[in-house]
Amino acid sequence: MSERISKKKYKITFLPENKSIFIFKGENIFDASMNAGIFLDSECGGVGTCGRCKVLLKSGQVEKVHSELLSLEDEDRGYILACQTYPKSDLVVEVPVMEIEEAAIQEGLLAKDTSKLETTEKVLAGIKRLDIRDVKILPRVVKKLVTVEPPIIGRSNSDKYRLDKALKQQLNLKDCFIPLGILKKLPNTLRKGKWMVTVTVDEISKNLIDIEPGNTTGENYGLAIDIGTTTVVVYLVNLNNGKILASASEYNKQIRAGEDIISRIVYSLKGAGLEVLQGLIVETINELIVEACKRTGVNPEKIHSIVCAGNTTMMHFLHGVSPKYLREEPYVPVTNIFPPVNSKELFLEHTPKAIVRSAPSVASYIGGDISAGLLISKLTEQEKLTLFLDLGTNGELVIGNSQWMMSASCSAGPAFEGGGVKDGMRAIRGAIEVVEIDRKTFKSKIKVIGGIKPKGICGSAMIDLLGQLYITGIINRKGKFNPDLNSSYVVLEKANPYYIVAKAKETTTGRDIIITEVDLDNLIRAKGAVYAGIATLLEEVELTKDDLEQIFIAGGFGHFINVKNAVIIGMLPDLPEKRFTFLGNTSVAGAHLALINRYKWKEMESISKNITYIELFNNNKFYERYIASLFLPYTHIEEFPSVKKILKERGLCIQE
Amino acid sequence: MSERISKKKYKITFLPENKSIFIFKGENIFDASMNAGIFLDSECGGVGTCGRCKVLLKSGQVEKVHSELLSLEDEDRGYILACQTYPKSDLVVEVPVMEIEEAAIQEGLLAKDTSKLETTEKVLAGIKRLDIRDVKILPRVVKKLVTVEPPIIGRSNSDKYRLDKALKQQLNLKDCFIPLGILKKLPNTLRKGKWMVTVTVDEISKNLIDIEPGNTTGENYGLAIDIGTTTVVVYLVNLNNGKILASASEYNKQIRAGEDIISRIVYSLKGAGLEVLQGLIVETINELIVEACKRTGVNPEKIHSIVCAGNTTMMHFLHGVSPKYLREEPYVPVTNIFPPVNSKELFLEHTPKAIVRSAPSVASYIGGDISAGLLISKLTEQEKLTLFLDLGTNGELVIGNSQWMMSASCSAGPAFEGGGVKDGMRAIRGAIEVVEIDRKTFKSKIKVIGGIKPKGICGSAMIDLLGQLYITGIINRKGKFNPDLNSSYVVLEKANPYYIVAKAKETTTGRDIIITEVDLDNLIRAKGAVYAGIATLLEEVELTKDDLEQIFIAGGFGHFINVKNAVIIGMLPDLPEKRFTFLGNTSVAGAHLALINRYKWKEMESISKNITYIELFNNNKFYERYIASLFLPYTHIEEFPSVKKILKERGLCIQE
Repeated sequence: MSERISKKKYKITFLPENKSIFIFKGENIFDASMNAGIFLDSECGGVGTCGRCKVLLKSGQVEKVHSELLSLEDEDRGYILACQTYPKSDLVVEVPVMEIEEAAIQEGLLAKDTSKLETTEKVLAGIKRLDIRDVKILPRVVKKLVTVEPPIIGRSNSDKYRLDKALKQQLNLKDCFIPLGILKKLPNTLRKGKWMVTVTVDEISKNLIDIEPGNTTGENYGLAIDIGTTTVVVYLVNLNNGKILASASEYNKQIRAGEDIISRIVYSLKGAGLEVLQGLIVETINELIVEACKRTGVNPEKIHSIVCAGNTTMMHFLHGVSPKYLREEPYVPVTNIFPPVNSKELFLEHTPKAIVRSAPSVASYIGGDISAGLLISKLTEQEKLTLFLDLGTNGELVIGNSQWMMSASCSAGPAFEGGGVKDGMRAIRGAIEVVEIDRKTFKSKIKVIGGIKPKGICGSAMIDLLGQLYITGIINRKGKFNPDLNSSYVVLEKANPYYIVAKAKETTTGRDIIITEVDLDNLIRAKGAVYAGIATLLEEVELTKDDLEQIFIAGGFGHFINVKNAVIIGMLPDLPEKRFTFLGNTSVAGAHLALINRYKWKEMESISKNITYIELFNNNKFYERYIASLFLPYTHIEEFPSVKKILKERGLCIQE
Repeated sequence: MSERISKKKYKITFLPENKSIFIFKGENIFDASMNAGIFLDSECGGVGTCGRCKVLLKSGQVEKVHSELLSLEDEDRGYILACQTYPKSDLVVEVPVMEIEEAAIQEGLLAKDTSKLETTEKVLAGIKRLDIRDVKILPRVVKKLVTVEPPIIGRSNSDKYRLDKALKQQLNLKDCFIPLGILKKLPNTLRKGKWMVTVTVDEISKNLIDIEPGNTTGENYGLAIDIGTTTVVVYLVNLNNGKILASASEYNKQIRAGEDIISRIVYSLKGAGLEVLQGLIVETINELIVEACKRTGVNPEKIHSIVCAGNTTMMHFLHGVSPKYLREEPYVPVTNIFPPVNSKELFLEHTPKAIVRSAPSVASYIGGDISAGLLISKLTEQEKLTLFLDLGTNGELVIGNSQWMMSASCSAGPAFEGGGVKDGMRAIRGAIEVVEIDRKTFKSKIKVIGGIKPKGICGSAMIDLLGQLYITGIINRKGKFNPDLNSSYVVLEKANPYYIVAKAKETTTGRDIIITEVDLDNLIRAKGAVYAGIATLLEEVELTKDDLEQIFIAGGFGHFINVKNAVIIGMLPDLPEKRFTFLGNTSVAGAHLALINRYKWKEMESISKNITYIELFNNNKFYERYIASLFLPYTHIEEFPSVKKILKERGLCIQE
């Protein structure tokens, strides 16, 4: 595109903010919006594939690239796609604010007002929390009380000298590094506390993190944070006993800049895109910290230690480090191991005293969330051959046991976390989490988190839906609706047929909760990527699915998955149900464990170094299997004998 | 004063800036000026003892404390002393800008315009520079070229991993800490340099300080900085060969807030006083850095290492750490050893990549300047019993040899650096540095730095003047002018008699250069403090002056001191001239040595730990000797037999 850019500048004004910015001729309106800090709706990050960045052209001349993603109707009304339109004069455009915000609120992306943050009950379904009863509480950051000798004539050593002496004699801490910020407050703190002070110490680096007058050892808090592509989860933890005081979760605000990792990397390469993305993830975390602290009355300044776990790209964004080369062959991260940093360096403004450490990544697409997950799953202690599967926007797979580990990654997309699915939502209160479809009436029996009227569908129910729609004959193996059905639950609209999971009168929103053919297509692509990943990885290590003695499933998409349905749709290999174990969100649980026990952190570091990584990008075998997986359950039904049996029993078509 | 403060607020407006600020009733106008960031002339820091903070009251009601420091004439004209005046209503006051600035320019405190900075020839007289021929160039911060392996498919480790590998294999640097700032620029730097990069490494901490594409090993610079109470000296050093590329010096801008250390500590305790003082020293240094870089064309971003040496109080101010308890018994510093800090933490904005290290202090009033001075003087290698004497605004004394060291400090005041003396100036171009008075004509023979017409008098010439005026009978042993003299060089004005050192027609300024009775009084107090310090310290170690086998004199007050005159005035002990050696500014020379050789830094650290310190504050013996020293040469003439002899020869009164 650069050759299109000439030196001529145009002024682009965005309504209703009335914000103007100059751009060079040849840059498009999406570029301008990024530079102006205006958020346009977008899933693809401005590359012209999602068709969501439409704006209304109010005045000015433009050069448009024709896009089928913009409806004729919209075109007639004066809409243009921002990323496909280049100015030929100064322009005024209007961003359809209400549409974006409404859409975002529907999807739970934006709180309509702050009260929503409080009323949304943050029941984090699907998270099997760490049982801290078996864990020794040995956090890296500890608080200790020390008594410092007051100065007298003849022994007028410096305040620091006397503090050093106390640290050495009372805590056996030698050569503790005392940063300038603490020196500045040292004299007043010592005198205010009448020479009795509480020190906050990093037990590994031997750095002094804080000093307070008197005894404040009771107030030592930490955060365990799972930074997912789609969802962010924060635990507020009492570091004195390891307990979770509050948990909070929200969609990752980066979704505004693209739903999947690749779109966001593309977004980060333009203008101030990287800073925008860092700002969005930081804003998400900051809001969750405020919420968790508000609910518990904990002063965020007493949070001294933060452990983050997330995929490699998310960690790059969090640290403001460009993930550019993660997207270009040979797919290189800047680093797998980020140094510990002060909160302020990451703009985590509410916790100025906290040191942020990030779980180490294994490779470009096996992140610290997996290192944390393997820590909590105890994969390295297993004698049995185990498959560890973390299902999020990316699917990560690790096969191994106490002897070896091999990993791969595949992009499942955000469907299982509610993204890209019309009535999709996260596994929070109001989400349908279980679905069973009656073979005769085609009506769904549903279970809703929190036992209230449903608002939407979370990941586990989507797997159920896909499986149940298939084995009730409502859809075929390609995920298309049977055109011959006559049911009030199936609406065969020409453009996008859909199935009604819950009728308007039964829902919170007063609208039907539905699943469309487009949604089903997204789900099939998601499950296909997961299965192709498993199959390819197995082949790489010269094993078959039957060699898998146990399968650990991690991810925040529901309390559990109905394994039968997951096998029916061909996402999980056709194995006996008892081999499957659900671990919930192992990323945040592993971060929690590493937060409260410093030796577990070391163990996690060691795990991350001992995993071999196989790149599936551009891997032909993976691609072939993926194409074969775009059917229910799979092109070759022989790989799914139990599904074949069900289909046979129900008299459904086995091969088309 | 706090009980005077009520909640009623008044608005104080300062002209000509027209800057307003609200203060509580009971706060004085000096307090208001500090909060408003308006600099009033002051030597005492607002405690009512210098009488310099006068402002013109334009409107409003005030409550004045009577002060004899304000002349009746000024009072009639509407002037008030800001620190002695409390508002009783909203006020408008005018700061006599021109007077202050003119005074400051005369004293060399302010450059009249930026061109002055360039035209003032920065001949730093009195600085005997380090002879680098004998020094191994082993700076702590080095630059090295490394070649990093490019990533390929199958070996797509992170950029950091491959850099780590190169550092280990090519530089034997293991576990080098790479901060986030460098990770952010790592991918582009590696690719821009085509996998050949220059790393800047701290050899002690093993931290990576910078990374640049290609070979930039030739550009590695450092700064050695002497931060004196009165004068600041900066050396710009090429770290590859140890050579000084430029040196620059200026008065410490903190003088605006008080001339001596105690006044400044007092100033720092009020309002934003500490921040103001940090700002002033930082501003001084920043200007000198800019000047040194401008003259040499060195990019200040290529400065990677800074070593500062200064007294303990100055180091507190530089780091923004309160020196409050340095002034209260038992005189405790916050720390003698400041941690290495990044330039930016100290607001040294021009050198963002530099690590600033400060020479360690010994005690409250024996600073890093003395540790640096002892390093360069090689005191710890001397077999002979040696007195090391650093004469600045404070006089520091160390007695010892390779076996032991004992130190003390006394406040000499800024007189020897040109402060508090009407025509005093630093030892720069245009300063009279040598004076000899003709016994018959009373005319001075002078030597001027740079060989030009004189502008003022520097420290070495002041010692000459005091001595010569005494032994020519122009002044008596109390420093008072002989009322019976009849000479065109002696003006016996009733208020403040003076001696004309150079007549108007011979000077650059076109005005007489004079020394007044008040000036002489200041000088006598200064020399008295030094001598009392030496005598008290000797007594503490149970030695006499005759045991001193050699005396090293350090300080930036002139090329050298005329020892004869220094003995005549009773500043230095009456010992044979050959025992005295002049070392010049050993603080900056020691900083230079520690900058270019990291083992010398270690040696300096070790020196600072091996010195015993004796507190002379509130020491009765010191006080008695100080009182006895307020005569020329001393109350007891027997301590100065050579002076007695001269007086006898010249037929001058020996005892009054």
